[in-house]
Amino acid sequence: MTSYAEAGVDIRAAEENVSRISRHVRSTHGPHVLGDFGAFAGLFHLTDVRDPVLVASTDGVGTKLLVGLQLKRYEVLGSDLVNLSVNDVLTTGARPLFFLDYVGLHALDHAVMEQLVQGMAAACRENGCALLGGETAQLKDLYAPGHLDLAGTVVGVVERDAIIDGSTVQPGDRVWGLPSNGLHTNGYSLARQLITDLDQHGDALMAPHPSYFPRVQPWLKRVKAIAHITGGGIPGNLPRVLPASVSAELDWGAWPVPHIFEVLQERGRISDEEMRSVFNMGLGLILVADPAEDFSGAMRVGRIIPRGEERVIFKSR
Amino acid sequence: MTSYAEAGVDIRAAEENVSRISRHVRSTHGPHVLGDFGAFAGLFHLTDVRDPVLVASTDGVGTKLLVGLQLKRYEVLGSDLVNLSVNDVLTTGARPLFFLDYVGLHALDHAVMEQLVQGMAAACRENGCALLGGETAQLKDLYAPGHLDLAGTVVGVVERDAIIDGSTVQPGDRVWGLPSNGLHTNGYSLARQLITDLDQHGDALMAPHPSYFPRVQPWLKRVKAIAHITGGGIPGNLPRVLPASVSAELDWGAWPVPHIFEVLQERGRISDEEMRSVFNMGLGLILVADPAEDFSGAMRVGRIIPRGEERVIFKSR
Repeated sequence: MTSYAEAGVDIRAAEENVSRISRHVRSTHGPHVLGDFGAFAGLFHLTDVRDPVLVASTDGVGTKLLVGLQLKRYEVLGSDLVNLSVNDVLTTGARPLFFLDYVGLHALDHAVMEQLVQGMAAACRENGCALLGGETAQLKDLYAPGHLDLAGTVVGVVERDAIIDGSTVQPGDRVWGLPSNGLHTNGYSLARQLITDLDQHGDALMAPHPSYFPRVQPWLKRVKAIAHITGGGIPGNLPRVLPASVSAELDWGAWPVPHIFEVLQERGRISDEEMRSVFNMGLGLILVADPAEDFSGAMRVGRIIPRGEERVIFKSR
Repeated sequence: MTSYAEAGVDIRAAEENVSRISRHVRSTHGPHVLGDFGAFAGLFHLTDVRDPVLVASTDGVGTKLLVGLQLKRYEVLGSDLVNLSVNDVLTTGARPLFFLDYVGLHALDHAVMEQLVQGMAAACRENGCALLGGETAQLKDLYAPGHLDLAGTVVGVVERDAIIDGSTVQPGDRVWGLPSNGLHTNGYSLARQLITDLDQHGDALMAPHPSYFPRVQPWLKRVKAIAHITGGGIPGNLPRVLPASVSAELDWGAWPVPHIFEVLQERGRISDEEMRSVFNMGLGLILVADPAEDFSGAMRVGRIIPRGEERVIFKSR
């Protein structure tokens, strides 16, 4: 007689998992979440929007996952997964409504799962969004023991006439930056080769990817464009939200570059240009606005100019 | 000098990937999709709903993935990923709006990615939903060559006063079933151990998980409860949508059981009870409705009775 447990699926462990994580999940639920945790699907009541545009992003934490697994920083991986997609959704002016996660793994480890979900739930609360659902898949023959992969989806909403898309950006506009605290979730394939002394630099590598939503939300009505600085760095991301008729001129030196980038550049003997096209180099989010606007707490980092050959110019002072 | 390509991230391959799959992605886009494929997030204009409740589900195809990889049935994996979450969302009465996917893999294989996305896009078109976004992550040190994992998220919408939640189900109601064509996406950990002659039974194992949305949508106003028969079989899923005061009595023999289940039961010398608690046994979706209702094309499979010790009774004829 073959039973399902013998075939490698431990249903009792899966039930134990659900009961352990449900406390964290429920801590993110407000009155907009209808129905019960554990149903076939999550229900979210959308209110107070006249002409809703839903804004959605699915992402993973990339190779930072492998560093996080090695250092057992599961809470950081969980909160990064939420925050990186919240920032993507924020680029359109949207506020996050809810988040869903996928965890694929070798076998359920309750402590690991609880830390992952704790990290996700904390980030969801910080962003005012609900952890609405998720799936944990035990795939013994796909994942090695101790390995797992993560994916997360954020759904947000913005009024149609409040979508931020960069279309009104023009020469003379000011470019603002919000500081990064390290690599966030990009450049880890390279960083992992250069930094193997994790006792020394592990903390810097695992600095959490922050959400910019709480800081930027009060400014949204005065912002023309928002770029999340992810893979491809500033030159790879800022032009994505600029009209074809303009370039951006940034004052290199106008913002602090976290120390970890110096370590990486020195160890890899990497050119400035390559560094900038891989890493965020100290700016996690870039805003563009009319020069009359002021954003207390953000840094003035440059200006919009008529289109040149390069879409982003780094001007040394 | 270290460059990012040397570190194992082939950005040109990633760009080639985007250009290959974009044709399939765009084939799912109607006027509700705003903005451009390739932006930080996908935008979907929500219209024609008075009091919207968003319904969301994230899932993977489970161990069927490993059979699909072995048999290189990437299109089936792609369409399964969409359809299984569409069915989950459908249990609340919602229609799907959009889908996002996550693919984690060892290295990009353009043919594989194109087949996966082709499968997703075809299923999205069939369900009238948009493939709004996705992420493909190259994680060489997590996935073995040729391996990948998949996760998908469906977001749907239902009018708040049209949510189907089973609360009005009462003794005397009729139970209807829609046929499955095999295991759909559940029970593969066990099935994979019992069926190793994939030349013989591979096609049966890789029968696509159908979407029930196109068939069931016209009936939604007349249905009291919908259960998607996934992991846990009929006894594990039907009670999830029934009030605590009732049980369901099903007529064993009232619907055809696909041949593959006989093969599995015989090879594993599995009890009837275990078979029913692992596999769908021929019913992919179960509906409950007033006995006066009729659903042409669905099968009458049982009735709702006052609560007994068992929540689901299989009555042999």
